[in-house]
Amino acid sequence: MTPQALLAILSEVEQGRIAPADAAEKLAKLPFEDLGHTRVDHHRSLRTGLPEVIYAAGKTPGQTVAIFDSLRRDGVDTLATRVSAETASALLEAHPDAVYNAIARTVFCRKAPAETDRGHIAVVCAGTSDLPVAEEAAVTAETFGARVTRLYDVGVAGLHRILAVRETLAEADAVIVCAGMEGALPSVVGGLVGVPVIAVPTSVGYGASFGGASALLGMLNSCSPNVVVVNIDNGFGAAYTAVLIARKTSSR
Amino acid sequence: MTPQALLAILSEVEQGRIAPADAAEKLAKLPFEDLGHTRVDHHRSLRTGLPEVIYAAGKTPGQTVAIFDSLRRDGVDTLATRVSAETASALLEAHPDAVYNAIARTVFCRKAPAETDRGHIAVVCAGTSDLPVAEEAAVTAETFGARVTRLYDVGVAGLHRILAVRETLAEADAVIVCAGMEGALPSVVGGLVGVPVIAVPTSVGYGASFGGASALLGMLNSCSPNVVVVNIDNGFGAAYTAVLIARKTSSR
Amino acid sequence: MTPQALLAILSEVEQGRIAPADAAEKLAKLPFEDLGHTRVDHHRSLRTGLPEVIYAAGKTPGQTVAIFDSLRRDGVDTLATRVSAETASALLEAHPDAVYNAIARTVFCRKAPAETDRGHIAVVCAGTSDLPVAEEAAVTAETFGARVTRLYDVGVAGLHRILAVRETLAEADAVIVCAGMEGALPSVVGGLVGVPVIAVPTSVGYGASFGGASALLGMLNSCSPNVVVVNIDNGFGAAYTAVLIARKTSSR
Amino acid sequence: MTPQALLAILSEVEQGRIAPADAAEKLAKLPFEDLGHTRVDHHRSLRTGLPEVIYAAGKTPGQTVAIFDSLRRDGVDTLATRVSAETASALLEAHPDAVYNAIARTVFCRKAPAETDRGHIAVVCAGTSDLPVAEEAAVTAETFGARVTRLYDVGVAGLHRILAVRETLAEADAVIVCAGMEGALPSVVGGLVGVPVIAVPTSVGYGASFGGASALLGMLNSCSPNVVVVNIDNGFGAAYTAVLIARKTSSR
Amino acid sequence: MTPQALLAILSEVEQGRIAPADAAEKLAKLPFEDLGHTRVDHHRSLRTGLPEVIYAAGKTPGQTVAIFDSLRRDGVDTLATRVSAETASALLEAHPDAVYNAIARTVFCRKAPAETDRGHIAVVCAGTSDLPVAEEAAVTAETFGARVTRLYDVGVAGLHRILAVRETLAEADAVIVCAGMEGALPSVVGGLVGVPVIAVPTSVGYGASFGGASALLGMLNSCSPNVVVVNIDNGFGAAYTAVLIARKTSSR
Amino acid sequence: MTPQALLAILSEVEQGRIAPADAAEKLAKLPFEDLGHTRVDHHRSLRTGLPEVIYAAGKTPGQTVAIFDSLRRDGVDTLATRVSAETASALLEAHPDAVYNAIARTVFCRKAPAETDRGHIAVVCAGTSDLPVAEEAAVTAETFGARVTRLYDVGVAGLHRILAVRETLAEADAVIVCAGMEGALPSVVGGLVGVPVIAVPTSVGYGASFGGASALLGMLNSCSPNVVVVNIDNGFGAAYTAVLIARKTSSR
Amino acid sequence: MTPQALLAILSEVEQGRIAPADAAEKLAKLPFEDLGHTRVDHHRSLRTGLPEVIYAAGKTPGQTVAIFDSLRRDGVDTLATRVSAETASALLEAHPDAVYNAIARTVFCRKAPAETDRGHIAVVCAGTSDLPVAEEAAVTAETFGARVTRLYDVGVAGLHRILAVRETLAEADAVIVCAGMEGALPSVVGGLVGVPVIAVPTSVGYGASFGGASALLGMLNSCSPNVVVVNIDNGFGAAYTAVLIARKTSSR
Amino acid sequence: MTPQALLAILSEVEQGRIAPADAAEKLAKLPFEDLGHTRVDHHRSLRTGLPEVIYAAGKTPGQTVAIFDSLRRDGVDTLATRVSAETASALLEAHPDAVYNAIARTVFCRKAPAETDRGHIAVVCAGTSDLPVAEEAAVTAETFGARVTRLYDVGVAGLHRILAVRETLAEADAVIVCAGMEGALPSVVGGLVGVPVIAVPTSVGYGASFGGASALLGMLNSCSPNVVVVNIDNGFGAAYTAVLIARKTSSR
Repeated sequence: MTPQALLAILSEVEQGRIAPADAAEKLAKLPFEDLGHTRVDHHRSLRTGLPEVIYAAGKTPGQTVAIFDSLRRDGVDTLATRVSAETASALLEAHPDAVYNAIARTVFCRKAPAETDRGHIAVVCAGTSDLPVAEEAAVTAETFGARVTRLYDVGVAGLHRILAVRETLAEADAVIVCAGMEGALPSVVGGLVGVPVIAVPTSVGYGASFGGASALLGMLNSCSPNVVVVNIDNGFGAAYTAVLIARKTSSR
Repeated sequence: MTPQALLAILSEVEQGRIAPADAAEKLAKLPFEDLGHTRVDHHRSLRTGLPEVIYAAGKTPGQTVAIFDSLRRDGVDTLATRVSAETASALLEAHPDAVYNAIARTVFCRKAPAETDRGHIAVVCAGTSDLPVAEEAAVTAETFGARVTRLYDVGVAGLHRILAVRETLAEADAVIVCAGMEGALPSVVGGLVGVPVIAVPTSVGYGASFGGASALLGMLNSCSPNVVVVNIDNGFGAAYTAVLIARKTSSR
Repeated sequence: MTPQALLAILSEVEQGRIAPADAAEKLAKLPFEDLGHTRVDHHRSLRTGLPEVIYAAGKTPGQTVAIFDSLRRDGVDTLATRVSAETASALLEAHPDAVYNAIARTVFCRKAPAETDRGHIAVVCAGTSDLPVAEEAAVTAETFGARVTRLYDVGVAGLHRILAVRETLAEADAVIVCAGMEGALPSVVGGLVGVPVIAVPTSVGYGASFGGASALLGMLNSCSPNVVVVNIDNGFGAAYTAVLIARKTSSR
Repeated sequence: MTPQALLAILSEVEQGRIAPADAAEKLAKLPFEDLGHTRVDHHRSLRTGLPEVIYAAGKTPGQTVAIFDSLRRDGVDTLATRVSAETASALLEAHPDAVYNAIARTVFCRKAPAETDRGHIAVVCAGTSDLPVAEEAAVTAETFGARVTRLYDVGVAGLHRILAVRETLAEADAVIVCAGMEGALPSVVGGLVGVPVIAVPTSVGYGASFGGASALLGMLNSCSPNVVVVNIDNGFGAAYTAVLIARKTSSR
Repeated sequence: MTPQALLAILSEVEQGRIAPADAAEKLAKLPFEDLGHTRVDHHRSLRTGLPEVIYAAGKTPGQTVAIFDSLRRDGVDTLATRVSAETASALLEAHPDAVYNAIARTVFCRKAPAETDRGHIAVVCAGTSDLPVAEEAAVTAETFGARVTRLYDVGVAGLHRILAVRETLAEADAVIVCAGMEGALPSVVGGLVGVPVIAVPTSVGYGASFGGASALLGMLNSCSPNVVVVNIDNGFGAAYTAVLIARKTSSR
Repeated sequence: MTPQALLAILSEVEQGRIAPADAAEKLAKLPFEDLGHTRVDHHRSLRTGLPEVIYAAGKTPGQTVAIFDSLRRDGVDTLATRVSAETASALLEAHPDAVYNAIARTVFCRKAPAETDRGHIAVVCAGTSDLPVAEEAAVTAETFGARVTRLYDVGVAGLHRILAVRETLAEADAVIVCAGMEGALPSVVGGLVGVPVIAVPTSVGYGASFGGASALLGMLNSCSPNVVVVNIDNGFGAAYTAVLIARKTSSR
Repeated sequence: MTPQALLAILSEVEQGRIAPADAAEKLAKLPFEDLGHTRVDHHRSLRTGLPEVIYAAGKTPGQTVAIFDSLRRDGVDTLATRVSAETASALLEAHPDAVYNAIARTVFCRKAPAETDRGHIAVVCAGTSDLPVAEEAAVTAETFGARVTRLYDVGVAGLHRILAVRETLAEADAVIVCAGMEGALPSVVGGLVGVPVIAVPTSVGYGASFGGASALLGMLNSCSPNVVVVNIDNGFGAAYTAVLIARKTSSR
Repeated sequence: MTPQALLAILSEVEQGRIAPADAAEKLAKLPFEDLGHTRVDHHRSLRTGLPEVIYAAGKTPGQTVAIFDSLRRDGVDTLATRVSAETASALLEAHPDAVYNAIARTVFCRKAPAETDRGHIAVVCAGTSDLPVAEEAAVTAETFGARVTRLYDVGVAGLHRILAVRETLAEADAVIVCAGMEGALPSVVGGLVGVPVIAVPTSVGYGASFGGASALLGMLNSCSPNVVVVNIDNGFGAAYTAVLIARKTSSR
């Protein structure tokens, strides 16, 4: 029900065309959130101002293209994540102006000119194997209008590499740290900066890394109190929250 | 907001004392579920017709008595579960007509005459150590108006015991099976009856029983398709659902 | 041994053709359940009145077709679940009147006219990735004679979607809720309805979803007392129990 | 080494009192971070402007009082968390102006007038058992200068309670959600607001809650992309990060 | 129902006092196993010839004494395991001829003269901390009539100790090996003997021993094919099975 | 060193050709077990009288054939387990008299006439999916000279099937029970017989079966004290131990 | 058997008093390691030259004192670890010259003058809660004759603290790093030094630290290749190995 | 920045060409470790004197060749581990003088003549399936200049095999033990030698081996105090640390 429809009912009550008791029964059952929008994604987009995102894993190329088409018709910026090579080809054929990032596994299509800078996010990763997750975060954040600084291959076994980028880290509004294996990097970065650090455990490693669970546990037990954690390999979620943090900062 | 309050607003619109636009703004923000009741337990009680239940674990005797008092003032049957001996004493002092079941760890107080039979529930358990959980289930079900048949100490290592109660099982509207250790009893019972079996893993056992986790896993993997599972030691939840099943059956 | 055979033995005793001691020895060893049926599946079918079901996972197409043939010869409705595309082809070739549901991975063949309505079951799922499990549940329930309402894509991150279907949920005799990831949907649905909710964790997710274990744990810890749980991806078991609940309700 | 000391060395080089080679050896070994502060906590306090915090768990009352004394002598606001009743008595005896919060298990002592508002944080919890964690978060955030709105006892089994506080949630700069059992509340809250949600799993529950692990896993798998997670019962860390988010927002 | 009772019914049929149809109905419902004994423990005792055993953990002293009394009245040897000091006192007061083993936590009472040798069982353990489990096994086996050789403190870090008892091991009919920590001893013993080795993981250890789970896993992965495993700390079960093996051997 | 070599040294001492002190030094370092045989498998074969067994998993066809050749040259019965189809072809080509069992994944070659009966082993399994493990056990036991009775498809959800084979079970010297899913069958069988029951959890199942871990845990927690357990899918180990039990019994 | 006894046998052979064949039989069965010492600890002490150590956890004060007495009578340095306050009192009463370290939970008694320096070991820990484990390591290493440098409270959240001790670390022959929570410190230290780093996870932490398991997993997944790991809280084992490393280095 | 560059700056200060304040600002920000080398691997190589190593898993053949080329240009010995057959071909084509070890999955290229002996390392493994891990360790150690003795196929189920190599073990400076399944071998070896034992759990096994986790847990709980552990299958890390131990020993 749109606000217009609500107003219409109330006008009818005012004009005596609907009895108050009948209107009461009708209104009492109204879904709270269902005023003028029917799909959650559109609703979220309206509320946050962030583009629509399609999680392509587990969807066929055809399904992904169909959803992509529908969103573009709505005239919004559109991002697809976890895109396979096959799905990427299908999307690029249908949308030649879309941009495919093979490492990040993303396809993005911008409709309107990019917003001006919406904050500064640093994306840090420990090793080259963490790149797909780090790039998913970086591309997502850029798509959402943030300025992104990539600081890759700065593992804790060589502290000078982290120290060398310390000033850059300190300038960011939020820092995303992707790391597999022991997941120690977020604690070290958290000790160097005074902003929120979003830790992304990656499934990089073997043996007792247990598919990223060891890195996840390490990050949850971080001794730096400004470290928060998302799911294993969830670069998208880290970027989403980082943008919410950074944008607020820069928009005031 | 009560239905009365809603009606009042709409009457004011009808009488022109509130403009439709103002009323629309007011009503659009109304919490959907908040018409005439403010606490979820009351709401649930109204919807299901089952008595109020206080989960006493983690509450002080004083807190438990206070909530118990409040509910009795509302004139509803009242049940407290996971009651410690100390809390039980406090409740009995305040409510001399309440009934304490030390094994089930429950205190119950009935206000109105008990409903007539609301279905038949069999509560089965494998060993004497499972009794507290089985009794929590049995007392809860009785409190909610069901007729309960207790079939205790019928473990799978002595099949003749289960077979001896087979006819009784078959007559129930729902069967609750409490078992620790390997948790095999629900599968065996499930194969004997044609009604839903609600399996309750108990924390009985040692070593690789891992606090009931082994029994839980066994029940989730049951080869009998009419077995559903609740949390470890959750006799209350099993009874709650069993009553919903049995009552419908018998009330039509 | 059939009841007829038992009667025959006793008649021979009456007529003095078998000595009591010999009959005693014979009868003492009789398998308790083996009176008149020799295979458990037939027995279950007789007891519950539900069709035969073949779990096709881990069986070759040839094996599945052979069992399917055998059951159809017995003149009963026949359902195969977890059917691969290859097995589905083989079944359809042998039974052109069978119906294949590619999403639910089921093949069904009805012999007699469908029973009249045996209760109403709502099948709810959180996302499109949960569809195979939800459809397995829905098709199974329909096969067993229930009326099924499908309420798909109503995840907890957009409450208005759940609230929009609240009335439909409240009309069901039992609700099946399939959800992966955090498995929060059954708790929310359980709070909205006064009937049993059967929660089915799905293996949807990645990273710390651990193949559905996180959703399973969430559901077992539900704060709604009318939620019971089955194994990960076990849409069939959920439907089987839901039909037992719904049928009783509607048949009286 | 302070910046002054560094300047002194370089001046001595300029004046020819130290040979460049000797200075080079001296400077090459300088600890990078050790310019003007020797203890990490002081350093963190200087960098973030947040008060000193003592984690009192595992420290004797005497040790805690000694550290508390030392920090107060530095003239900074001082907060102790996870304070036992015994330690609280010792602290209050030594610092009669300190404030003890028995539920939050905190002792706080403010030296200078509280800062003006540094952002708005909503602290939400699902049940009364989650109060100690929620209060630890709330008191920490207030100590750090944030305005805190407490929204307690709004579990997912009664959606109307969450919906009733929806507007308040939407006004916060960051939301902290504490929940045990299935840990579903952060996803629901995350779907209602457009700001970062920091989820704190609590060790509330029994059986398959596994000391909070189930709630933790549920939160990590949240379908709301604006949900980030901290360790079980870590109300302090959640508040620390929330203040970093909220303060930036409001200070610009 | 006893065999006598069954014979009585059939005689009545023969004499025409009961109609075959009535007898058929009566017999068809007879529990298969319930001919002549009504409690599983008695049944098991009759079948195996082993004494009755009371698992005292989780039972009050009063309950344990009551069951002990009842069994002794039946004139059978009686063993109680997992006996607390308090329960032991109560048992010894009631049964002054009973024998209490404080390390094994057992109380035993023999009625008839002990059977002659029923096989030879070696009980091996790795360290002094494993003694309670090893003694539970040894006392149980002796109670059941086996000759027991104790070989204690022969951990794998000092192979000469194991090699020194090699001949004794080789003479046993079955070997029980109790070990905590890494649980390596059963594999080593299994390689030295040609008889079944029953491995009992103990909860001895700390840290990553996880309450005996590590020892359990080690034993399940044994490279010696004659190693079988029981639950953590289950000395009783190991002895029970060892006696079944050893007795057969020696009784023929 | 062979016994001959030892004798030679001692003779040299007797004859004064080696000084006692020199001989002492030489003998003190002798590997204890290395008197006349150099490979463990030969040693085990000599000690137990059981044929050689090759575990083919993880070996190439060529490697497996080479070891098979070597063992046959020694003139002993030879069994290969976990044989792939490709390896089986290679073995059959090289040893046309060998027998391949595709379900059990074994290849066996007998050199001498089979031994006379070495005891009676019952192999029980719960479902058709457990067949490969059950057959590995059955074929191994037959290879080792035991008489095997196969009792398949007797799951606990249909007790009449187990009860129907009760007498056969009771006649065995040892019972092997293979079961996946909830792993309840060994407890039920253990309650029916008075001989050792060797439980083999199988990796059959899905979701919360966790690759057989749930069945394993169920079996370790069995309430039947005559149940011992081996590794998941370890039909070979179960048969190996069962033969050691059964052979002793029947050979005396 | 002592070397003397062996020599005696051989002399008898030389003198013709024992036939070579009889001696051969006798010697072939000699336990390999059992020449002149009967307890493993003595053997280990002889082989490594390190003092005897008593692991006092799980032993009564009386037992511990008895073993301590026995070892001192042998005239060796004696160390007891995991000593409770009660046991410490008993030891000090019996051995007034012993030294009790309450934090390390050790009691030590030196017989001969301490050896000269046997290498240099650095013991590093992350926080004050790790002190008991770090001190157990430090005291053990000192007892064994090593020079120990303690570098405490150098967690990764404040890198300047680690960098400040970098030169000291680089001078050690081996480094022991004790850390709980995320266990990141060994990786950082491993990157700074060119010697072996022995990582000791501690059980410090709460919630998802799971009693030290998270720290353990982090250390096993270290990206520094010179990091090896011991059991949770195993300061003793870390020191034992570190001394073996350091002593070799310095003794040449 | 090289030491030369640092000296240049200081000389400019001495000569008055840079003001002390400007130099102070410049030097204060210098990354501590970044004096004269910019990549961590080079730094580590310089510090330890060990060759560069490329971990090829997760890198394409092209990427691996490119890094290999770059390192060789630097004139250092170069080792690649976890090399697939495809990558090995590419490396050998580009570097015909490189040596490929298919079992160890390594490619090595020596530039300068091999160093003289840098210590003696024994590599022990339990079964033939552990060979790839053992060979990775052996080849790595040889590459780093150590003398390696391979002692393969000496599992604990046949102790004579271990005892036969006892003297060889005792001569090593460090021992690496690779074992899967129950992981018992390191404890046994640790009891035989007086040097550090580095245990490498392998992922060999099935069922309850859980990909090497059981072996890992066994090794962490070793009763031999000279056993330290690395990650599952981490033959490289074990060799790296073993060389650090052995080299120090032999170089003095």
